[in-house]
Amino acid sequence: MFVGDKLHDHNALRLAAHERRYAFINSEVAIPSDLITKLKDFQIAIPSWALGTGGTRFGRFSGGGEPRNLEEKIADVGLLHALNQTSGAISLHIPWDSTTNPTAIKALAAQHGLAFDAVNSNTFQDQANQALSYKFGSLQHVDAAVRKQAVQHNIEVIQQGIDLGSKSLTVWLSDGSCFPGQLNFRKAYERTVDSLKEIYAALPGDWKLFLEYKAYEPNFYSTTVGDWGQSYSMVNKLGEKAFTLVDLGHHLPNANIEQIVSLLLMEGKLGGFHFNDSKYGDDDLTAGSIKPYQLFLIFNELVDGMDAKGMNHAKDLGWMIDASHNVKDPLEDLLQSVEAIQMAYAQALLVDRTALEAARNANDVVACQEILQTAFRTDVRSLVAQARLELGGALDPMALFRDLGIRNQLIQQRGAKTQATGL
Amino acid sequence: MFVGDKLHDHNALRLAAHERRYAFINSEVAIPSDLITKLKDFQIAIPSWALGTGGTRFGRFSGGGEPRNLEEKIADVGLLHALNQTSGAISLHIPWDSTTNPTAIKALAAQHGLAFDAVNSNTFQDQANQALSYKFGSLQHVDAAVRKQAVQHNIEVIQQGIDLGSKSLTVWLSDGSCFPGQLNFRKAYERTVDSLKEIYAALPGDWKLFLEYKAYEPNFYSTTVGDWGQSYSMVNKLGEKAFTLVDLGHHLPNANIEQIVSLLLMEGKLGGFHFNDSKYGDDDLTAGSIKPYQLFLIFNELVDGMDAKGMNHAKDLGWMIDASHNVKDPLEDLLQSVEAIQMAYAQALLVDRTALEAARNANDVVACQEILQTAFRTDVRSLVAQARLELGGALDPMALFRDLGIRNQLIQQRGAKTQATGL
Amino acid sequence: MFVGDKLHDHNALRLAAHERRYAFINSEVAIPSDLITKLKDFQIAIPSWALGTGGTRFGRFSGGGEPRNLEEKIADVGLLHALNQTSGAISLHIPWDSTTNPTAIKALAAQHGLAFDAVNSNTFQDQANQALSYKFGSLQHVDAAVRKQAVQHNIEVIQQGIDLGSKSLTVWLSDGSCFPGQLNFRKAYERTVDSLKEIYAALPGDWKLFLEYKAYEPNFYSTTVGDWGQSYSMVNKLGEKAFTLVDLGHHLPNANIEQIVSLLLMEGKLGGFHFNDSKYGDDDLTAGSIKPYQLFLIFNELVDGMDAKGMNHAKDLGWMIDASHNVKDPLEDLLQSVEAIQMAYAQALLVDRTALEAARNANDVVACQEILQTAFRTDVRSLVAQARLELGGALDPMALFRDLGIRNQLIQQRGAKTQATGL
Amino acid sequence: MFVGDKLHDHNALRLAAHERRYAFINSEVAIPSDLITKLKDFQIAIPSWALGTGGTRFGRFSGGGEPRNLEEKIADVGLLHALNQTSGAISLHIPWDSTTNPTAIKALAAQHGLAFDAVNSNTFQDQANQALSYKFGSLQHVDAAVRKQAVQHNIEVIQQGIDLGSKSLTVWLSDGSCFPGQLNFRKAYERTVDSLKEIYAALPGDWKLFLEYKAYEPNFYSTTVGDWGQSYSMVNKLGEKAFTLVDLGHHLPNANIEQIVSLLLMEGKLGGFHFNDSKYGDDDLTAGSIKPYQLFLIFNELVDGMDAKGMNHAKDLGWMIDASHNVKDPLEDLLQSVEAIQMAYAQALLVDRTALEAARNANDVVACQEILQTAFRTDVRSLVAQARLELGGALDPMALFRDLGIRNQLIQQRGAKTQATGL
Repeated sequence: MFVGDKLHDHNALRLAAHERRYAFINSEVAIPSDLITKLKDFQIAIPSWALGTGGTRFGRFSGGGEPRNLEEKIADVGLLHALNQTSGAISLHIPWDSTTNPTAIKALAAQHGLAFDAVNSNTFQDQANQALSYKFGSLQHVDAAVRKQAVQHNIEVIQQGIDLGSKSLTVWLSDGSCFPGQLNFRKAYERTVDSLKEIYAALPGDWKLFLEYKAYEPNFYSTTVGDWGQSYSMVNKLGEKAFTLVDLGHHLPNANIEQIVSLLLMEGKLGGFHFNDSKYGDDDLTAGSIKPYQLFLIFNELVDGMDAKGMNHAKDLGWMIDASHNVKDPLEDLLQSVEAIQMAYAQALLVDRTALEAARNANDVVACQEILQTAFRTDVRSLVAQARLELGGALDPMALFRDLGIRNQLIQQRGAKTQATGL
Repeated sequence: MFVGDKLHDHNALRLAAHERRYAFINSEVAIPSDLITKLKDFQIAIPSWALGTGGTRFGRFSGGGEPRNLEEKIADVGLLHALNQTSGAISLHIPWDSTTNPTAIKALAAQHGLAFDAVNSNTFQDQANQALSYKFGSLQHVDAAVRKQAVQHNIEVIQQGIDLGSKSLTVWLSDGSCFPGQLNFRKAYERTVDSLKEIYAALPGDWKLFLEYKAYEPNFYSTTVGDWGQSYSMVNKLGEKAFTLVDLGHHLPNANIEQIVSLLLMEGKLGGFHFNDSKYGDDDLTAGSIKPYQLFLIFNELVDGMDAKGMNHAKDLGWMIDASHNVKDPLEDLLQSVEAIQMAYAQALLVDRTALEAARNANDVVACQEILQTAFRTDVRSLVAQARLELGGALDPMALFRDLGIRNQLIQQRGAKTQATGL
Repeated sequence: MFVGDKLHDHNALRLAAHERRYAFINSEVAIPSDLITKLKDFQIAIPSWALGTGGTRFGRFSGGGEPRNLEEKIADVGLLHALNQTSGAISLHIPWDSTTNPTAIKALAAQHGLAFDAVNSNTFQDQANQALSYKFGSLQHVDAAVRKQAVQHNIEVIQQGIDLGSKSLTVWLSDGSCFPGQLNFRKAYERTVDSLKEIYAALPGDWKLFLEYKAYEPNFYSTTVGDWGQSYSMVNKLGEKAFTLVDLGHHLPNANIEQIVSLLLMEGKLGGFHFNDSKYGDDDLTAGSIKPYQLFLIFNELVDGMDAKGMNHAKDLGWMIDASHNVKDPLEDLLQSVEAIQMAYAQALLVDRTALEAARNANDVVACQEILQTAFRTDVRSLVAQARLELGGALDPMALFRDLGIRNQLIQQRGAKTQATGL
Repeated sequence: MFVGDKLHDHNALRLAAHERRYAFINSEVAIPSDLITKLKDFQIAIPSWALGTGGTRFGRFSGGGEPRNLEEKIADVGLLHALNQTSGAISLHIPWDSTTNPTAIKALAAQHGLAFDAVNSNTFQDQANQALSYKFGSLQHVDAAVRKQAVQHNIEVIQQGIDLGSKSLTVWLSDGSCFPGQLNFRKAYERTVDSLKEIYAALPGDWKLFLEYKAYEPNFYSTTVGDWGQSYSMVNKLGEKAFTLVDLGHHLPNANIEQIVSLLLMEGKLGGFHFNDSKYGDDDLTAGSIKPYQLFLIFNELVDGMDAKGMNHAKDLGWMIDASHNVKDPLEDLLQSVEAIQMAYAQALLVDRTALEAARNANDVVACQEILQTAFRTDVRSLVAQARLELGGALDPMALFRDLGIRNQLIQQRGAKTQATGL
């Protein structure tokens, strides 16, 4: 409704300049013939909980026009997708996004060209009317009744996902402890694995289970699925439909995330990604806003590792954003994140892998760096724009978003003080 | 009301065992003759916002019987003080703890034997009916009207503090930025100093201004008063009533906090402390629960540095707890924190400083370590208990708290689902 | 030769005081009946390379009287063992400690009551006359000939270990990369596993292979066995004689090492320990000198986890120190490390595990902390001293070392400017 | 000698392609008219100690053809400068680079077009024949005689610098402690300041003193000039010729270095830079190899801050590389570092500061990020190449270095196993 044929005018105005840039890069750089196709196929799921203003434990500064329900969340993602044609999926969080009418919701999403990516369970908060509390954990809990409640919730989430056409469940557990002594690490691990096995048993044959890990927060001494090694050892115990999910902000300081990505891929246990960026902890900032080179290095491993296994870049891993927007317009932030992810992917596709392997085999470290940085230093904005253009999106989605005054329209529609369900 | 003469029975039952332990340590260790007196004089202020369950950005799991207003907060601190006789002050946070009847509040506190420690301003959250938002900062804000509003709030806080008999203002600013480029660091610094100067100008002659620093959170790229050096450079620009306040959880990983404490003391610019403990960030855990040796090393510097300046341990710095209780009973947590702080202080008082300086002058590093660890390895629980006993407190405050079923009484009084004002 | 019957006099002088303390703790604390026996059985291996002054990349400040050869290293460990009766093993590093006469060396060690703990291979340095360089790695190297050389070296180390009666091989690899792009992480991993399989195939049936991990240094971008998850996934691929070895200084900032220890034990894949302490990185400081509570928490997991599997505390894991002494006398430093380790072990044995499990099952976090801290706050020095006394060691090994003027004797014997082989 | 007229052929071959790229960027981006001039004026000093292979405490893998003396070091820097015309200064380290014939050395440098940047003193190592040891510090030492020796050394370094035409002294102190208790922080600080005052008194009127700080290493518990706040408080006590020097690798994890840079500039106390990059600690890797965006953000502050004070970019701060080359050819590494620094500077010059300030004043965080990233995403390689071209350097210095087989020539000249004086 918002974008309409303004997009055509927008692109018409920018086309000549774009074509000049696109011609230049094609004349300068050896662009793989399938690069634009790969960029076009690469869709990034938008998390329903990132469409509203986030917050910290110290407070939350609301924005305006935030979606008040699932329908409006779908509309927001539809809007992003209309602008960039690269946000063609939404990832739901249950019970925040529970629906009693999945058929209507599916139809609505289809109208916007959206698929349903992984569904997320929530056992890190207590809901009103919830029988038992997750204060001391969920799948790890010492009380079997709490574990059972949490398992049942996950099974219910799978069911809702089936109804919507989702094909994967993301399990993020805040389970852990705040103080030394609080937890028997071993038993907590074993109880968690047992609970996960029950959830896994309820998984349809064509589904995947993603087990996310996180170093700390909200528990401040230990987290039961705290690092990739813990997630990896658990998914190995579950079976071939279970995978580790990597969230870029969930590591200890200085962790080499790209190496972790590479090894999980090699082991056939990488399931998907939560993109964001951070300087200190799980800061949930815009992808590429703090460490764009790291984002590129991660994609460099993804491309290399997926190609080595003959995987389909677009389909065989789950690509999701997980972010929180404290000071930016959520939709603008997501446009920035998607573009940064696409650029990192495009740069990774430009890496001369034959030369890189040759340099590695010659221990020519200087050349290895030159090869990576040559790709990273290349201005790939016109490649990403070309992919958008071919898909029917805007050459400059952010400019169009602003020119159309979309946020103001949303505020008029929904009100200046709204709060999205979720965090 | 709760403690009454149960305390007498409690102590009577434990007295013989205590005296045996106390006699033993006196026979084994050279206890400075004024150690017990110093322990008795050392009062630790309880923050009004730590009397209820805290939370994280992911959620909050309420406890029961939490104080619903300032009167009940005072009652809670009074209870702690009745148990340990070492929590003889309360630190208020405005506007959470604003009162229209300071005379009555003062009288109530006096009944519990409580003084009013530093008052805290709050410009990191928006209050209902607040004219301008602090979303993009307060004292650093680009808009002079926002800065003026924040300055006025601080002046109002000073006024409320005067009415209650407080003698210091703690300013903690969340001001900073979430993304590179958002802030002109230099101008933000300068605007902040200018704002602080206006607040400082409103400070009574016998007051202190404490400027707290924090590395990150809730801003995730920069914080305008982000480290001790920034606070130090600012308080130097304000004047002799302005000091730096150290919160143990507000540092980058691996920071040597004890060295910072020592240098600030040397420079005459250490104002006070927010005690807590942490493993990852500003985790606000119970003092001494993660790194008790670090707590001891900090007190080792405090004792050494204050003695070098002839300062009064009990009076010349502000001693406050700042904590958040996600999984513990807040009152029990505070009892544990106070005891851990007292133990660290007692151990620091046991350090043989003459021998330590001699070992340092001889570069006898092994001996230096032995001297510190001899003090730290000493079981000082009976010293702390003796101080409590002489003050009229309980030999084992935690046991008494539990034996008396205080939490249950509070729940019956106040309800099972309450939420304290504050975070 | 040095200690002789001075030890008898030393103990005689201190006996009464010791017995008073030992009686007191027995009257105050419920000491498990087998605690002293366990302490006596618990021997900590001394690394041959820690008997001389270490250094950093910025320089090295030699001490005097350092051992010039393997015989003198054995003498030094023998001396430590004579003093504390708890350092009854030496861990050798090949080729630094290669010998052509293992029979004589074994006999010499036996005279001092010493066994040979794990032997260590060295493929992180180039030796004079070495055919191929390890500049770009060893077991991971792109050149099969380098890998073969490194494998052969490890097999040679096993052979030397067999000759001396060792039963385990510790493999620490510096293999990794300094710059993004330098290494194909996946292939480096695979080549490393292949190389390890060749070494593993040469392992006698009653031997163990310990695979150490390290986050960074000397490689500053990636390390191929970089964290516990990487080591764990590798030893799983090798077989049941392969285990992960934990060095306390080899983690990213803020890592929860005690949780890692617990999980590796649970998985049957913890092989042993390198004790030391650190504030920033692999600082190799005296055990317990920076974070004594962490050391206790690790032992708390070790005792719990080993007991859960019915393991023998003294025999079923490898207990080794790995340290570097830049500013302390190496022998004094090792005395301090051994004592700190024993104290942490003793405190862990004092933990009331029945009460702890009960508190955990009740989610009584406050009680969990009290139970751990009650053990940690207990002054166990007299328990450790009693174990030493019963074994024939000194009540105060450090005092005896100094009273005997041992370092001066060593300097007279060996010279004021010596440098031990090794780092 | 090596470069000669090969450079002409090299450039001739690449000129057309370069001109095409340079024309394109000029047609696409608003290039400030003085940008190329500023790039040409911006010279980066090469440290004499980085011309040979570095090492770690675990070992060192020599390269070939390394300079064996000061003359050969000057030749190496001259070679770099011939290639890139941007390395027109050398920074010496005394006593490694002491000379008895400064006139000849000056003449040699002049032949290569090189100036002498800051001279560096060394009180972190003991030299043969040195009377007193720096094992326990230098300017902080408890023994006045050691302090005096260290002060004298610094004065001697100044004298040597005067003879060569240097105008600044860089003081980096490893002084600190390895263990809690070892040091009286306060007295160490005071002794250090007193020592620095003596050095400062010997400083010529037109000289600057740069006081470097470092968080840790080689001391692993405390460093006496450990962070910017400590350096800042010290240089304030010295006088207007004393400044803080920032080395990018000398911070705690996650430090916001660009903010520190901005504040030091604001306070008039930033003296200069040691460029390098790091992932974990003081890794001394190639500038821009790990966090190129951070390098850009730092330059963004430098440009903004220097312009705000009307400073000359090229002259008013000290620009130096400090690096160590463990796996790369040192000269190739330095070429990469210089280019990365120039690119970051060029990108910072492209930032639209008017728009940025407007966005900041509007709290338009999204726009602030877009403005910075627009500059960062611009491929500025042709701008840097143009500056080199105009200066008479090579369009592709690395390619020319390799095409000319310079390293092989150096090996033939100097030998395959050489070791530069220095680390």
